Amino acid sequence: MPHLTALSPSAAAADWLHQRQHDMESALSHWVAPQAPADLQATMRYAVLDGGKRLRPLLVLASHEAVMQQHPQLAASQVAVWHDTALRAACAVELIHAYSLVHDDMPCMDNDQMRRGKPTTHVQFGEAAALLAGDAMQALAFELLTPLAEETGTPESDLTPPATQAALCAILARAAGHRGMAGGQAIDLAHVGKRMTQAALQHMHTLKTGALLQASVRMGCHCAPHANAHPDPRLLAALVQYGDAIGLAFQVVDDVLDATADSATLGKTAGKDAANDKPTYVSLMGIEAAQAYATQLHQQAMQALEQTGLPDTRILVALADMVIQRRY
Amino acid sequence: MPHLTALSPSAAAADWLHQRQHDMESALSHWVAPQAPADLQATMRYAVLDGGKRLRPLLVLASHEAVMQQHPQLAASQVAVWHDTALRAACAVELIHAYSLVHDDMPCMDNDQMRRGKPTTHVQFGEAAALLAGDAMQALAFELLTPLAEETGTPESDLTPPATQAALCAILARAAGHRGMAGGQAIDLAHVGKRMTQAALQHMHTLKTGALLQASVRMGCHCAPHANAHPDPRLLAALVQYGDAIGLAFQVVDDVLDATADSATLGKTAGKDAANDKPTYVSLMGIEAAQAYATQLHQQAMQALEQTGLPDTRILVALADMVIQRRY
Repeated sequence: MPHLTALSPSAAAADWLHQRQHDMESALSHWVAPQAPADLQATMRYAVLDGGKRLRPLLVLASHEAVMQQHPQLAASQVAVWHDTALRAACAVELIHAYSLVHDDMPCMDNDQMRRGKPTTHVQFGEAAALLAGDAMQALAFELLTPLAEETGTPESDLTPPATQAALCAILARAAGHRGMAGGQAIDLAHVGKRMTQAALQHMHTLKTGALLQASVRMGCHCAPHANAHPDPRLLAALVQYGDAIGLAFQVVDDVLDATADSATLGKTAGKDAANDKPTYVSLMGIEAAQAYATQLHQQAMQALEQTGLPDTRILVALADMVIQRRY
Repeated sequence: MPHLTALSPSAAAADWLHQRQHDMESALSHWVAPQAPADLQATMRYAVLDGGKRLRPLLVLASHEAVMQQHPQLAASQVAVWHDTALRAACAVELIHAYSLVHDDMPCMDNDQMRRGKPTTHVQFGEAAALLAGDAMQALAFELLTPLAEETGTPESDLTPPATQAALCAILARAAGHRGMAGGQAIDLAHVGKRMTQAALQHMHTLKTGALLQASVRMGCHCAPHANAHPDPRLLAALVQYGDAIGLAFQVVDDVLDATADSATLGKTAGKDAANDKPTYVSLMGIEAAQAYATQLHQQAMQALEQTGLPDTRILVALADMVIQRRY
């Protein structure tokens, strides 16, 4: 598997990515899900631990840290609260993403046998266990966003402020649901084997993939002290623009990789879109135009970052680079 | 289908039940899910509208109204806020319950063909659509708990206070997830065809059915003005005891009905537990002892209601009667 440093962001950004990927593995391992019945726990852990690029949680953490620059005077104890909030939000987003993969891979959906170089969850544990683990993972995402004093042993004053908890739940529920990921999935289902215009394809991906990527950036931005728990609208709008651009770029690159890479590199079945007669950016535009479009979206993301007015956006730049330059 | 008045609660309680069941249908029809893609919308509406006893949402509303008696001086505008909050919470709980039925009925789980007298959702719309609709229904539950000013057109001051939104999400996520409904389902899966002690059976049902019934009462109790959004611990504890007792009674009656009623009355396949070799209260205790146990649990629920100290608990009594006396 190619190393992240192969993607040549600056050395500092590469260090950051490694450190945060490590933090994510620890946090997910801690929270998924020691009190679940044994079989369910094993299935949930298999589905979410030790795999994936963790792009969405890295976006949460990068957005959070970029926005925290606006609060250099904050007491260390308060910094810790917001850091814990962001880590919970990052895990919540990853749980939603991971559950969607478990369900999408099932025989009645894409019927995939391989994911991240391992057998898919239903192949490993059976369909009933996979279905149930996915359901429990979605619920767990909202548990993580709503920490309780009696569970964490932390006084309520050191937990995420309730207004931020509510805002994070609001964003994630909408991004995961019928106007977000699940809605995009439904449009996808309805169009297998049918022609789609680029506008229709874009709309589908905006929901199916883009909504959760945008939510990641948005949630990270909420993980900082704001008046009434609402971030500055101009800052949020610029970050959302960045998230939308790399969301689309992510999908364009996905389509290019599906058409050009081999299964071993991807860790999942390559050439699946063409085999399933799914409309893609490659089938619509050709490979070269799709690659040029990805580059154009990357530039849009860079322009949006400039409009945030944040002093240091190197990590967000590195994540955009990672989206464009990834090989799997 | 027997009419609720056949269950002979007092006439006032019967009126209340009818009115609130009507309110629930309207609210669910309003919120599920006008902005979803057409196929997804049709599947979600089929799965949740026009069916079921609505026991869980009725518990939310009854608990809310019982607790609101403590605030007779509240301004009408504030009463409206809490009523809307309770209606959203009631719909959220029902969405979780309804999605769990959709997924449980699928071929890889119970493989049921009939539910509430109609074909199950996957029989009607296909497995992929049913899987996806269930996922979207879970997300929608958390959307309803976190209303946004820009979506409702209501100023933020007239929406559910954020601390209550967070508390409701916290309760529902835990009741639906690996320590609640999904956890109980996993224990159930692991025990098909195996012997269970009464204690193990009780633990399984406490999670699988009891958690969401308890959450219904708990959430209703939160839908009222409380200091720091926390209800009085003694009041909450008594209501939780009531919820737990009728939660268990519900399951005992379910087992008795599965063994004694016919499919036409139940609106689903009868005798399924014995056919699937599932441990039940009937297989463990026999029918008569199971019926006596249900009556004993009903008495426990009545004692718990006395301990709430609330002046009027007639509706909560009527719901407990409904659980014990139901014929389907």
